[in-house]
Amino acid sequence: MNEPRPQPVDAALVPRFAGHATFMRLPAVDSAAGLDIALVGIPWDGGTTNRAGARHGPREVRNQSSLMRRANHHTGIAPYDLVSVADAGDLTVQPIDLMTGLAQIEDGIAAICAQGALPLCVGGDHLTTLPVLRAIRKAQGAPLGLIHFDAHSDTNDRYFGDNRYTHGTPFRRAIEEGILDPMRIVQIGIRGSVYDVDEHGWAKAQGVRIVYIEEFVERGPAAVMAEARAVVGDGPAYVTFDIDSLDPSMAPGTGTPEIGGFTTREAQAMVRMLSGVNIVGADVVEVSPPFDVGGMTALAGATILFELLCVMADGLARKRQEGQQA
Amino acid sequence: MNEPRPQPVDAALVPRFAGHATFMRLPAVDSAAGLDIALVGIPWDGGTTNRAGARHGPREVRNQSSLMRRANHHTGIAPYDLVSVADAGDLTVQPIDLMTGLAQIEDGIAAICAQGALPLCVGGDHLTTLPVLRAIRKAQGAPLGLIHFDAHSDTNDRYFGDNRYTHGTPFRRAIEEGILDPMRIVQIGIRGSVYDVDEHGWAKAQGVRIVYIEEFVERGPAAVMAEARAVVGDGPAYVTFDIDSLDPSMAPGTGTPEIGGFTTREAQAMVRMLSGVNIVGADVVEVSPPFDVGGMTALAGATILFELLCVMADGLARKRQEGQQA
Amino acid sequence: MNEPRPQPVDAALVPRFAGHATFMRLPAVDSAAGLDIALVGIPWDGGTTNRAGARHGPREVRNQSSLMRRANHHTGIAPYDLVSVADAGDLTVQPIDLMTGLAQIEDGIAAICAQGALPLCVGGDHLTTLPVLRAIRKAQGAPLGLIHFDAHSDTNDRYFGDNRYTHGTPFRRAIEEGILDPMRIVQIGIRGSVYDVDEHGWAKAQGVRIVYIEEFVERGPAAVMAEARAVVGDGPAYVTFDIDSLDPSMAPGTGTPEIGGFTTREAQAMVRMLSGVNIVGADVVEVSPPFDVGGMTALAGATILFELLCVMADGLARKRQEGQQA
Amino acid sequence: MNEPRPQPVDAALVPRFAGHATFMRLPAVDSAAGLDIALVGIPWDGGTTNRAGARHGPREVRNQSSLMRRANHHTGIAPYDLVSVADAGDLTVQPIDLMTGLAQIEDGIAAICAQGALPLCVGGDHLTTLPVLRAIRKAQGAPLGLIHFDAHSDTNDRYFGDNRYTHGTPFRRAIEEGILDPMRIVQIGIRGSVYDVDEHGWAKAQGVRIVYIEEFVERGPAAVMAEARAVVGDGPAYVTFDIDSLDPSMAPGTGTPEIGGFTTREAQAMVRMLSGVNIVGADVVEVSPPFDVGGMTALAGATILFELLCVMADGLARKRQEGQQA
Amino acid sequence: MNEPRPQPVDAALVPRFAGHATFMRLPAVDSAAGLDIALVGIPWDGGTTNRAGARHGPREVRNQSSLMRRANHHTGIAPYDLVSVADAGDLTVQPIDLMTGLAQIEDGIAAICAQGALPLCVGGDHLTTLPVLRAIRKAQGAPLGLIHFDAHSDTNDRYFGDNRYTHGTPFRRAIEEGILDPMRIVQIGIRGSVYDVDEHGWAKAQGVRIVYIEEFVERGPAAVMAEARAVVGDGPAYVTFDIDSLDPSMAPGTGTPEIGGFTTREAQAMVRMLSGVNIVGADVVEVSPPFDVGGMTALAGATILFELLCVMADGLARKRQEGQQA
Amino acid sequence: MNEPRPQPVDAALVPRFAGHATFMRLPAVDSAAGLDIALVGIPWDGGTTNRAGARHGPREVRNQSSLMRRANHHTGIAPYDLVSVADAGDLTVQPIDLMTGLAQIEDGIAAICAQGALPLCVGGDHLTTLPVLRAIRKAQGAPLGLIHFDAHSDTNDRYFGDNRYTHGTPFRRAIEEGILDPMRIVQIGIRGSVYDVDEHGWAKAQGVRIVYIEEFVERGPAAVMAEARAVVGDGPAYVTFDIDSLDPSMAPGTGTPEIGGFTTREAQAMVRMLSGVNIVGADVVEVSPPFDVGGMTALAGATILFELLCVMADGLARKRQEGQQA
Repeated sequence: MNEPRPQPVDAALVPRFAGHATFMRLPAVDSAAGLDIALVGIPWDGGTTNRAGARHGPREVRNQSSLMRRANHHTGIAPYDLVSVADAGDLTVQPIDLMTGLAQIEDGIAAICAQGALPLCVGGDHLTTLPVLRAIRKAQGAPLGLIHFDAHSDTNDRYFGDNRYTHGTPFRRAIEEGILDPMRIVQIGIRGSVYDVDEHGWAKAQGVRIVYIEEFVERGPAAVMAEARAVVGDGPAYVTFDIDSLDPSMAPGTGTPEIGGFTTREAQAMVRMLSGVNIVGADVVEVSPPFDVGGMTALAGATILFELLCVMADGLARKRQEGQQA
Repeated sequence: MNEPRPQPVDAALVPRFAGHATFMRLPAVDSAAGLDIALVGIPWDGGTTNRAGARHGPREVRNQSSLMRRANHHTGIAPYDLVSVADAGDLTVQPIDLMTGLAQIEDGIAAICAQGALPLCVGGDHLTTLPVLRAIRKAQGAPLGLIHFDAHSDTNDRYFGDNRYTHGTPFRRAIEEGILDPMRIVQIGIRGSVYDVDEHGWAKAQGVRIVYIEEFVERGPAAVMAEARAVVGDGPAYVTFDIDSLDPSMAPGTGTPEIGGFTTREAQAMVRMLSGVNIVGADVVEVSPPFDVGGMTALAGATILFELLCVMADGLARKRQEGQQA
Repeated sequence: MNEPRPQPVDAALVPRFAGHATFMRLPAVDSAAGLDIALVGIPWDGGTTNRAGARHGPREVRNQSSLMRRANHHTGIAPYDLVSVADAGDLTVQPIDLMTGLAQIEDGIAAICAQGALPLCVGGDHLTTLPVLRAIRKAQGAPLGLIHFDAHSDTNDRYFGDNRYTHGTPFRRAIEEGILDPMRIVQIGIRGSVYDVDEHGWAKAQGVRIVYIEEFVERGPAAVMAEARAVVGDGPAYVTFDIDSLDPSMAPGTGTPEIGGFTTREAQAMVRMLSGVNIVGADVVEVSPPFDVGGMTALAGATILFELLCVMADGLARKRQEGQQA
Repeated sequence: MNEPRPQPVDAALVPRFAGHATFMRLPAVDSAAGLDIALVGIPWDGGTTNRAGARHGPREVRNQSSLMRRANHHTGIAPYDLVSVADAGDLTVQPIDLMTGLAQIEDGIAAICAQGALPLCVGGDHLTTLPVLRAIRKAQGAPLGLIHFDAHSDTNDRYFGDNRYTHGTPFRRAIEEGILDPMRIVQIGIRGSVYDVDEHGWAKAQGVRIVYIEEFVERGPAAVMAEARAVVGDGPAYVTFDIDSLDPSMAPGTGTPEIGGFTTREAQAMVRMLSGVNIVGADVVEVSPPFDVGGMTALAGATILFELLCVMADGLARKRQEGQQA
Repeated sequence: MNEPRPQPVDAALVPRFAGHATFMRLPAVDSAAGLDIALVGIPWDGGTTNRAGARHGPREVRNQSSLMRRANHHTGIAPYDLVSVADAGDLTVQPIDLMTGLAQIEDGIAAICAQGALPLCVGGDHLTTLPVLRAIRKAQGAPLGLIHFDAHSDTNDRYFGDNRYTHGTPFRRAIEEGILDPMRIVQIGIRGSVYDVDEHGWAKAQGVRIVYIEEFVERGPAAVMAEARAVVGDGPAYVTFDIDSLDPSMAPGTGTPEIGGFTTREAQAMVRMLSGVNIVGADVVEVSPPFDVGGMTALAGATILFELLCVMADGLARKRQEGQQA
Repeated sequence: MNEPRPQPVDAALVPRFAGHATFMRLPAVDSAAGLDIALVGIPWDGGTTNRAGARHGPREVRNQSSLMRRANHHTGIAPYDLVSVADAGDLTVQPIDLMTGLAQIEDGIAAICAQGALPLCVGGDHLTTLPVLRAIRKAQGAPLGLIHFDAHSDTNDRYFGDNRYTHGTPFRRAIEEGILDPMRIVQIGIRGSVYDVDEHGWAKAQGVRIVYIEEFVERGPAAVMAEARAVVGDGPAYVTFDIDSLDPSMAPGTGTPEIGGFTTREAQAMVRMLSGVNIVGADVVEVSPPFDVGGMTALAGATILFELLCVMADGLARKRQEGQQA
């Protein structure tokens, strides 16, 4: 690569409260051309069945991401030294018509994929993940694995009569559409009361591995993530982080909070353990600023985003190195 | 009427913070049968183009309406002595599909009209008013007049390409559909920057009378309302009160605040001056609790709702009396 | 007076956020001995029928009063140059037993009166005013006049069965007990829905002059206050300022907000027009910090307190001057 | 049972933000007749020695309980399939006179017991538990055991001189009155600074088992709950959950927060381990909405309430089954 | 001008919550070259004597300015049709060393002036205005007039001993330095308690015209602004709008609130009456997001900024037209 | 000691919401004379590089410290029985000039040291610790050890060009100035992204022991604190507790939050394990009330302050006893 990689504004020169709020204080770019990873916002919550507000997520995650610095103190990964990454802006998605919205998201992500960049998205509600997966599935040409951090399985069938597209159904649709390989899906942190004791029966029958929070607490992050890596294997995989997987004390600003969730410590540890997974895209969803307190949820979202960026950048760098060595 | 009219819980016996939060602490009823006026919630904001949250309006207006007492200190109207009014619950409206939502609202209001009650609605965003008007128009069998308190004219044509149904378009649709007689529409309090200097040209061309806030400030409530009553005349008229007509200092909890709005004093005075108008339905819309501070907006909404109830109850009682005298 | 009068900490030397938060940054004193005016907190809300929290009023009014400076820019009154005034602390009042609480307040104020200081109190709910009046009535040896700024008349008889002492009844009790001369009472700003159209009948029958907010708006502060001064005449008078007389946009932090209230401009103007009234005590009540937003209500309370202090100090200085001239 | 058991509104049909906010979206009933378990609010905080507000607890717990679904994902208990449970409304308790308040609560609970339902209460401050215990003790005809989750022992003797009834004294009174068998009391999570190093001496001398938070952290939920079950044995037992037993990061909305408390995970685990205890009543107390942030505390309270409901419903169903088998 | 003028993102195509938050949703530019008016943030509050936070002002004003549309509904001015204006970013100002900060601001504004653009600034605290004035004074080559909306005169001499540069002193310094012509200064809205009855004596002695809020209320916006225009005359003038000139109910998010301030209606009216003034620069300062509630203050700031932009754009267009006609 | 030791106001007599808010409700004293430990506020945040507000820390920590009682339930330490401790007020530090501010702090602490009291300080940002250390170093006559709880190492060199004094640099300066012995420094809880992977290289090269949060999580409080005690040894040591060492869910009100921090449980445990360390001063810093939610951070700060007080008081008492025995 000849031209220098995009770099965040230096907080030791320009105070963090200054300047336009872009993701990680990176340059804002008009297209993903030349990028390895495109940070992209999807300000849309048309699939939300209860408390809306995730449409405001990208802006506030950008705002809080001003607190991020250049390198990961624990893993030593400095993503901007390894890959080209920038703030590719928000997808243009109108908030009124659901089916149009899904198409707009898919188109937007497809364009990023077409430019050779991996999308690292900030929702938006969890239904945004469905069109993102559709676009990546097409770009990859093969079904994807999924590592899914969430309080909810999101594999329900219908809501409010015959609505098949809500933030409670994306992964059922994705399995039905052949986007995800259900045998390569692991859901971690699932909890909260359910509509039906057998609510997750369909997903389990497809082969989805559900790690409820109680099992997670008993086994710990390392064991669970070892299994998760085994479940998704070497094939292309997507990572989706629903902020409501975190405990509401750490992420109150979300539409469907459930007590008893992950601590941020646990979440950071798990994301770091994604090292080695063949990540072809990822997202942080369901940050809902109108329900946030003190920006706490957006800060957690921004930090998880940074952790995802580190592990993705490191993965790309290793692949490139392997490619050069081969 | 033989059976006693529904009465609110007595705050001198049961503290206001106790009991289920119904509108005005009135009984919750399953149907509008036997009611003169039905207080009904429409928890839906599918037409919102920017900050959602009005779906939560009915619940918080109910909550704050516990502060309302039995009679109007200024006009002396004691509505529960004059008419039968109760909390008819919320309409069931799913939040996902817009066109289905509009149909559900229209059906719900049609049922209330069929039972002979006048609907006094709490939104929801301003698009909810369109299906409410559709139902009342059918029940009345004639086009309606409109007294419209708002910061915005809501007579735009389309948003985000070809979306004809948003909270910025209901009154254009209602005029086009023959529901409203544009010559009998008055909009009061309009202000805020506009997309186009000629943004209100279409409405004005139809005959809509727009009283911008600056004209209102200059002429005062009494003169403006005298004109408003003249505009709507004796025919059936609907009153719609968008909470963003109030100044954001008094109603911060709304999706599209505009500084320089009505004081609550002015708003109360104007609603009281509706006396004599043939009101066949009314609403308070766009209270958005996730953006509220200290319940201020929901309190203002609840109080305006009470003022509307007083003037409607008084109108009905006068009509009944005239009927008896005739 | 030989020793220098107490002075507030100088904000041009010590930042306003520094130091213990006393009223007006004045010295904290253990007794009212030597003071002309004693600023005293009454952290008690045992008479509250709905939303409690006024018990926290004195602390937050102290906190916000750090923003007050030395002199009144409009009237030119510099109270600390004219009289001795200090922070006499909070009365010790237990929150559990109502009748004991009333006695503790009366004793505390009686002690201040016995030392020759005028009490300028910060509540606490409005029932605190009753024992304050009892103590001053005894000290003065004559019934008092009352200038009462409020949204509510507070002359109800009973609540919740047979409870005669609540924040909705103090002035009825005070009239019954011969503490207040009802012919010398004026209530200004009364509004809000009522339990009964004739709710204020008893008060009016005693001779209390009630200026509803609508009359106030029509006549303006100057005319209303001219009448108020005439009503109370030259005799000893108490001034009570319920913060809920202000509009909720300016004072959301109170237990019983009513829209359509005074602006702070109007309130300041009226308090300044108390000049010439023979004030023997005053209070600011019903500031309820748990319901406040951004300290706005406590700031308004602190500023009204400062305005009351100015007019009281000026009155005392004039009396002293007249005494010296005589 | 012939008629169908009451069921919550189905969130897959009616959005959670719609409709009146009852506990768990269950039907509101006027009496406990026919119920196995009565969810009942006790909106009263007359015993609060510091920050009041728990009077507003039932309303906000109801509000947040709209997020609860039908079944427990972990234990598989679906309470509405097992027992009849509904929202029996709030007890009528006036906020002014303490002793009258205690009597009103006792009467209200006695009526529920008389109808054969077990009360599952939502406070209110912790003094509400005393009259609840009085009524259940009479109904049971024998002293009760107690499993008590709290930051505070609440076994002090007097406050502010001679006040024997505050939220710091209920369990001392209950022991003295022979309501509770002190040898069958276990208090878990006790922490926070104390007035006196020997503050809990009286309770310990009676035989109360106090598990301080430090011991809990060391031994873990399973060991502590095994002991707790052993302490209360097979006899009738009451479970009281003070929300301040939770860490303030998870339950900031309470009057007397103490850092270092339970996580919600730990709390849920412990409540589930109550299985097998002969629970004759339970409560969640001290949720104080005016001090809450983002509804976090009310959500935790609603979820713990659901967990208690599950374990109680399961217990009743097992008893019934055993009865049928016998 | 050949290339099209910069235009804001169209809210009828892209929702307002989407995209990077720039001022008015205008393009972000790296330099002021080619601009007629440069919107520029000055995130610095090093001169603040009490509550800091104005350093965060530009970012939140940008955020709320997404609510602004293209044209002024009242004056009909559509600024982006008249002049070239864009978001020129934030000045780089370090927050640690005061004198360095002042120099950085002056340099940044000087660069903008050198490119022929008029600076329209968003603070930052009021001391930021001093270096802005220094740069404009140099660029203009003549002393400036000043129209100053504020609660405070900001003409004190020193703070905390010998600190000559604080947000309470900028206009004294500017007069002393010959930047401002004191005979062409008018200050409007001044109020609040003062350190000294003669606090404004120095300013008045220089010829500064101070319109206290009480005079403003008596005379009204039109009369006051007529005088203001006369005071500044035809020469180059700067307009500074301290957000604390607004009432705290409308602008709580500021460091030194004073009750009794302008309504936003009054403020808008006055800014519109600046038409005809030869404005060579302007600012909105002292928006302090950490003290704001619900974004209310930043919204007011953004709207006043838009009003200033309209009047400045209109002025430039008229000048250009006059130039072409001449 | 003949006169009785200062005691906090008794909350069983005077409610906690009553009275002036001093640290721990202890008497306010004008000088540290006669004290063993002086609680002192340092309301200054001139070294803050991002979000200011710690200047307001002392006032809110005082406010929340009203919740503290007399004794430590776990360790049994009752500090007011062991040593003389009082609220020595706030240091007078002007907020405008950084170097003057540092000098003022050093002078203020030097005065306390000169009177023989140990300073227990409440900041203020972390740069306040530098002048505190300077004063103590002089008083002790020897370099100090440091036990440092923080998310950040604060050993950077310069910010914003050549600013050597910010809250990111104090411990580098203290090492360079010979105040701290780097071999006797331990930093615990360090985390968060870094500007440079080698950011802590300088500190490590001096011998500073950095325990990152990940190591802490793995080893646990007991092992880490055993090492910490070994690192500082028997010599005089200072303890500094940056509130941002806590997780943002427990301490959101701080300028530079980093997710994944200490729980309050862990922090309390570690502070208690300081027993035996020769503590010659301590502080709690970076509590920033404008960013706090619900007073949570100030409460955590007040409780940690109490824990520090307990361990310091116990240490002094033991020394005295040893001295008497010797």
